[in-house]
Amino acid sequence: MTGAFAQATAATADGPGHWSAEQVDGWDIHGNANGGVVLATAARAMAKEADRPDPVSVTAHYLRPIKTGPLTVETETLKAGRRLVTVSGRLLQGGQLALQLLGTFGDITAIDGPQLVVNDRPSYPPPDACISTYAPQGFAPGLMSKIDVRLVPEDALFATERSTGLAQMRGWFRLHDAEPIDVFASLLAIDAFPPAIFNTSLPNGWAPTVELTAHTRRRPRSEWLQVRVRSRYIFGGFLEEDTEVWDDDGLVALGRQLALVPL
Amino acid sequence: MTGAFAQATAATADGPGHWSAEQVDGWDIHGNANGGVVLATAARAMAKEADRPDPVSVTAHYLRPIKTGPLTVETETLKAGRRLVTVSGRLLQGGQLALQLLGTFGDITAIDGPQLVVNDRPSYPPPDACISTYAPQGFAPGLMSKIDVRLVPEDALFATERSTGLAQMRGWFRLHDAEPIDVFASLLAIDAFPPAIFNTSLPNGWAPTVELTAHTRRRPRSEWLQVRVRSRYIFGGFLEEDTEVWDDDGLVALGRQLALVPL
Repeated sequence: MTGAFAQATAATADGPGHWSAEQVDGWDIHGNANGGVVLATAARAMAKEADRPDPVSVTAHYLRPIKTGPLTVETETLKAGRRLVTVSGRLLQGGQLALQLLGTFGDITAIDGPQLVVNDRPSYPPPDACISTYAPQGFAPGLMSKIDVRLVPEDALFATERSTGLAQMRGWFRLHDAEPIDVFASLLAIDAFPPAIFNTSLPNGWAPTVELTAHTRRRPRSEWLQVRVRSRYIFGGFLEEDTEVWDDDGLVALGRQLALVPL
Repeated sequence: MTGAFAQATAATADGPGHWSAEQVDGWDIHGNANGGVVLATAARAMAKEADRPDPVSVTAHYLRPIKTGPLTVETETLKAGRRLVTVSGRLLQGGQLALQLLGTFGDITAIDGPQLVVNDRPSYPPPDACISTYAPQGFAPGLMSKIDVRLVPEDALFATERSTGLAQMRGWFRLHDAEPIDVFASLLAIDAFPPAIFNTSLPNGWAPTVELTAHTRRRPRSEWLQVRVRSRYIFGGFLEEDTEVWDDDGLVALGRQLALVPL
């Protein structure tokens, strides 16, 4: 039996470089598909094209909003090396290009080698002491009913007058029904939190992603992923959002996106 | 009269979506073209294709080393919006694909809007008190003869036993002969420093870039750019390199790359 996330992001081969997928109802932010879900869908198809298990680095440019309904993914291998395979991807809905992608795929369990990690994983309360983002009238009730996202209490104050003022969103992520978190779910975790700008005094609104790049560095092994989202440079109409994702053993993924500042 | 960097990264239209360029002798690291130079060359062609001045976000996957000699760039507009235009790019040498790119272009001077910046620009000695990277027998004498890179004294110790042990490289960047630093030169600045891993006790060697993403946020206005390169997660055969580039007024560009750890 397959979990809800695996089903929502499945890509079925139609022929060489052509894949069918579907934007499943509910994995949305107020009617538009969440960027992490469609990234995971496209990356699954691209990994199959590459015949490599892990999206070592994948970049998506978001060109059009995606609604519930059928999707197609087109993939093309640009270079197949022994270790790494580079693939371009296009995700379309109704014949219109919605996401353009470029990624390199490999096996992130294959190499050991030298190690030097600056452990700046933050310490904050465990999931049970954090605040669920799900509320029927709350932020993105569609998406937040599909996954389990918990925020550090002070970072959950964005709807109130007492928000921290810091462009930071810290918390925890897991899938429902004990569905194991695979490497593609770590792509979702990168884009599953409310925008960090929500905790500032700047206008809160939709911050459309222009581009998102994710590096997956280790396959998650824990039930919960720890996630920190930060924006340091909000100016000139753009902001960056840097996301770090850890499991119990350390970093699993890094994400950075460029988004438009809500006006 | 055009400066050396502008000449080295020029792209001339051959026809719709086809551009001629050249990897000029000397802009290399021990015979292979520097990744920032070829990124700037391809981004210039893509910006012309987009008819927009600034590479808001551009990603390159590095597929083959590039040598001195002719290059061609192929560009295709994927979506032209009012404000932003998304373009794919291919840079070839001898008919072989060397760089695959994906970028979104716009005018980064066009919007003002809300602003919130966490100013963690580091304070360190001015260029005159820093150490030139150029030495005939030193690191990358080709590239370092073409540009003026100065390192904070303690970060210049990587060739000695007294290196800091920190995966960090801080310093300054400018072009020769007072050539103005344009937005494409900020792409070069992102990849012009010795790898941050050189200041650690890990094996030092070529750390081939798999993928590099740059966001340009403001056009540089100073003679000197201040640059900090850091790697926090060196493990599993990969490392990320995060680069921040500031001019006298603040951030101008952010870069992140995924590279292979020298073995």
